[in-house]
Amino acid sequence: MKQINVVWHKIPDTDCTLSAIVFADYLNKKWYEAKPYIQGELNKETEYLLETLNIAKPEIATSFPEGTRVALVDHNEKSQTLDNIWDLDLEWVVDHHKVDFSTSAPLNIRMEAICSTSSILYKMYKESGFEISKEIGTMMLAWILSDSLLFKSATTTKEDVIIAEELKSITQITDFEKFAMPMFDAKSDLWDMDPEDIVKYDYKEFEINGHKIWVGTLETTNPWYALGRKNELLEAMKRIKEKSSLNFIFLSVVDIIWMKNISMVLDGDDSEVVKSVFDTEVTDNLADLKMRLSRKKQIIPDLTEFFTKK
Amino acid sequence: MKQINVVWHKIPDTDCTLSAIVFADYLNKKWYEAKPYIQGELNKETEYLLETLNIAKPEIATSFPEGTRVALVDHNEKSQTLDNIWDLDLEWVVDHHKVDFSTSAPLNIRMEAICSTSSILYKMYKESGFEISKEIGTMMLAWILSDSLLFKSATTTKEDVIIAEELKSITQITDFEKFAMPMFDAKSDLWDMDPEDIVKYDYKEFEINGHKIWVGTLETTNPWYALGRKNELLEAMKRIKEKSSLNFIFLSVVDIIWMKNISMVLDGDDSEVVKSVFDTEVTDNLADLKMRLSRKKQIIPDLTEFFTKK
Repeated sequence: MKQINVVWHKIPDTDCTLSAIVFADYLNKKWYEAKPYIQGELNKETEYLLETLNIAKPEIATSFPEGTRVALVDHNEKSQTLDNIWDLDLEWVVDHHKVDFSTSAPLNIRMEAICSTSSILYKMYKESGFEISKEIGTMMLAWILSDSLLFKSATTTKEDVIIAEELKSITQITDFEKFAMPMFDAKSDLWDMDPEDIVKYDYKEFEINGHKIWVGTLETTNPWYALGRKNELLEAMKRIKEKSSLNFIFLSVVDIIWMKNISMVLDGDDSEVVKSVFDTEVTDNLADLKMRLSRKKQIIPDLTEFFTKK
Repeated sequence: MKQINVVWHKIPDTDCTLSAIVFADYLNKKWYEAKPYIQGELNKETEYLLETLNIAKPEIATSFPEGTRVALVDHNEKSQTLDNIWDLDLEWVVDHHKVDFSTSAPLNIRMEAICSTSSILYKMYKESGFEISKEIGTMMLAWILSDSLLFKSATTTKEDVIIAEELKSITQITDFEKFAMPMFDAKSDLWDMDPEDIVKYDYKEFEINGHKIWVGTLETTNPWYALGRKNELLEAMKRIKEKSSLNFIFLSVVDIIWMKNISMVLDGDDSEVVKSVFDTEVTDNLADLKMRLSRKKQIIPDLTEFFTKK
């Protein structure tokens, strides 16, 4: 049996921990002895889920000894993965993001342009004839509902919906809204968090054509947790922008009940970028981005195009 | 129905044309209107197969209009793909090589560390519940036998062998050797070819740590087609090395009956590299590399290590 460590990405968005646990379960059913790892502390949604489902929190690791066999799940970019990925034996990648990595040897990769990596893993279980336990099925379902914001996100595909439906019989969870809302509420509960931690709660940092840009997203059932602390958050964004030598920083507060995106922007250049890219006004550091709920599909591509040409 | 063009890589090794035809057939069964393309003239093995199986030769193209949807099969590296890949809408990659590309959007990727991309496609048909026609099955089988040199190559996996066995009932081909030998003979028939074309018959060019290296392979049932023309071929290698500003050039003549590799090397630096990397003598520009039949697994990794440290 080959030992392998399964790793999720550095920046804790919702699906993180579950993805490593589910993929490790899959690999254990194949010909591996697989162990899930996380690269940092969990967000509140994931903490809530692990507690509710009574699942142990994986160990934290950001590097492994040279030559360790690893599997990456839900990410592939260098900036989001293990510190010493080049010393390791990368054997698997399962993901649904754009590609930005290279290897010196062939490996196993499964990527699909689909809302949730969970849906890809569900298909892989089916294809291999592996049984999906109630516990794994529940994690898969939570992960799909979280990724797709109860199917309201623009990234949702027909396949994600069909797979969630199929998971009903395994999980005996039939009321998706009832199952997902406490999970969404858990992640919305930001009142006791440090403003910098809120800005860092779920972000992607990119370098596009020499410009370093940072796009944070807060998906929340209660946008006032964030909007009510606007000044503190703008101060935190300013500090992060300076410390990380960013050219642009941006924080979307996505109301997942009412399906609206109100984004926070710093004065000056950043506001000009937002006005021009999203064709909107910026008033008191807030931009109404309306139904742009998906960072991957409705925010990043426009910013990428803008900074590529700049 | 989405239109998509399916493309194999620039340098014609054996599986090339078949891979584009088979993958286009798969995509047509999905939700595409797919058309196979090749990027240059065919080698003799492929010509023999298309003639024998009575299959039309795909059109040649090395670029497409901006925004054309494309699927790459059996390759992913920039140097081997369409000239204007960055203008195109890359939607699929099915391959079994190391990864060296990046994208600006998510896409569908299926890669496995397996001998033949044909085996991956076979699994994809099965997983999707698609029927494999006798014609497609025969192409798949030819492709597996060619990639694995009748299972003698070090890259052969248990899965490739099992899949070839499963293809017996679809193709009604049960004597693999009888089926594959005329195909191997066809590719061995080099007598009327220009020496430069022989050196370019099946090669990989890499840039490693600033060193441009070229590794050609002639898999043949009759090594004397090549060894008998040694001086002409060495002259051709010299010309190619100069024209392409290479730091190293190397041509393996792989006897697929007797499972031996005799490689041609130029005098000077190249001979020194071969001596040191493969721990062998070079006599009259020939190095006996013994059972190193797989370029991917038994030649490239050692050269990569050497030039990385140089």
